[in-house]
Amino acid sequence: MNAGSSEGKRKPVLTLVGAGPGDPELITMKGIRVLQTADVVLYDALVSDDILKLMPAHIPAWSVGKRAGSHSFRQDEINTLIVEFAYQYGHVVRLKGGDPFVFGRGHEEIEYAAAHGIETFVVPGVTSALSVPAAVGIPLTKRGVSESFWIVTGTTQSKNISADISLAAQSTSTVVILMGLSKIREIMKVFQLYGKQDTPVAVIQNGTLPGQRAVVANVSTIADEVQREGISSPAVIVIGEAVRYASINLLRNNLRDQGISFAG
Amino acid sequence: MNAGSSEGKRKPVLTLVGAGPGDPELITMKGIRVLQTADVVLYDALVSDDILKLMPAHIPAWSVGKRAGSHSFRQDEINTLIVEFAYQYGHVVRLKGGDPFVFGRGHEEIEYAAAHGIETFVVPGVTSALSVPAAVGIPLTKRGVSESFWIVTGTTQSKNISADISLAAQSTSTVVILMGLSKIREIMKVFQLYGKQDTPVAVIQNGTLPGQRAVVANVSTIADEVQREGISSPAVIVIGEAVRYASINLLRNNLRDQGISFAG
Repeated sequence: MNAGSSEGKRKPVLTLVGAGPGDPELITMKGIRVLQTADVVLYDALVSDDILKLMPAHIPAWSVGKRAGSHSFRQDEINTLIVEFAYQYGHVVRLKGGDPFVFGRGHEEIEYAAAHGIETFVVPGVTSALSVPAAVGIPLTKRGVSESFWIVTGTTQSKNISADISLAAQSTSTVVILMGLSKIREIMKVFQLYGKQDTPVAVIQNGTLPGQRAVVANVSTIADEVQREGISSPAVIVIGEAVRYASINLLRNNLRDQGISFAG
Repeated sequence: MNAGSSEGKRKPVLTLVGAGPGDPELITMKGIRVLQTADVVLYDALVSDDILKLMPAHIPAWSVGKRAGSHSFRQDEINTLIVEFAYQYGHVVRLKGGDPFVFGRGHEEIEYAAAHGIETFVVPGVTSALSVPAAVGIPLTKRGVSESFWIVTGTTQSKNISADISLAAQSTSTVVILMGLSKIREIMKVFQLYGKQDTPVAVIQNGTLPGQRAVVANVSTIADEVQREGISSPAVIVIGEAVRYASINLLRNNLRDQGISFAG
């Protein structure tokens, strides 16, 4: 996708690549193939070093990552960099944690680049919204328990909690909240309003990574548990009956399979 | 994870592996590594031949797949096979389309195997619920457009459409319905009840595969469009304002990247 033209200039291309939830082996084959054809890489803070090692040696790589509270680049600056680099270098690979279209503002990058004449591609990834619950044995769907799941962000553009959370609290859906840890008390109050005080809740920090930690409690107790255990971001909140299937055995096995000893 | 014991018997192990949405390159590195350590493989109908080629030569491989309307094995038969094979061969890899915990009854297999003394692991995959919309340029979330997405099955245990669809129809969520094509008229009626007749809807058949086809219309017209175009299962239904971003360019690019010429 990146053949040089007669002037030796490379065609400007942007590919968004989902790097997966943390465990470096959870990138796709296609993600790796595309990364190896990059002329320049822009990557987020949550992308692991082991994945960065898969890009070609000696190409420029920029960390443009955001972590809660500290923004190294604003979104408009990232958009501008993508366009400049595409015309300067050719194939820009934008490595994003999880899946590029799940709360990643990936579509804004695609739109901006396309409006500047750059050809765009998307390589989906394993989203943390599904794989982090799975890492502690929680199936988001289970026959007779949960026939749907709802992925919500805790951090909306308006800074308020999403009105959709009230609808989610009335459903039988497993509700997964990303970027919601700082608002956990407020979110749990919404579920209590709908009589869900005893519904189980899990909070998983650093899911699929060596530092993975999880607490399981219920709607009325989880905020205190999170505080007592010192759980911090990045964390995934899972609310619903399916949380009862969280399995310490599966957690232990998955960690051991990554060569990580399990203290819990 | 599969060292032989002193009697030469292998330890009984089950790993559920998500094979991704169809495009064989959308399996993870970890999925491939685990597949290469299999002693026996049980795979679903939607797993591609290119992925099956990655398993060790000369190990037994069984297709236990279901397609809408024709069940080659019942779930209880699959559960029994898993346990028998784990004790006979050692490491059973259960290759499932998409992600093993998204409507895949993967958790039932884990529970049954664990209850029979088998050690269990899960390798998440790229779910079609996210990657199929992405393949036609639809971002499930977009700032100011959709702050959440809801994944629902059209085929519930009770055979009725899920009551959660009424809540989903009232939300700003992007709603993704898997296995719902045969109930599309009934589902669209629920959205019409909540004044969503003009909300855009996409239906994508064989997403991420060479035979990919998509139609985009709105809640009141999509069922007729699907019928006129002859769209059939497996198909993903996406409902919500984010569908406006479906991009024929991105679709064309992604297909060409797979070496597929685009006629549309």
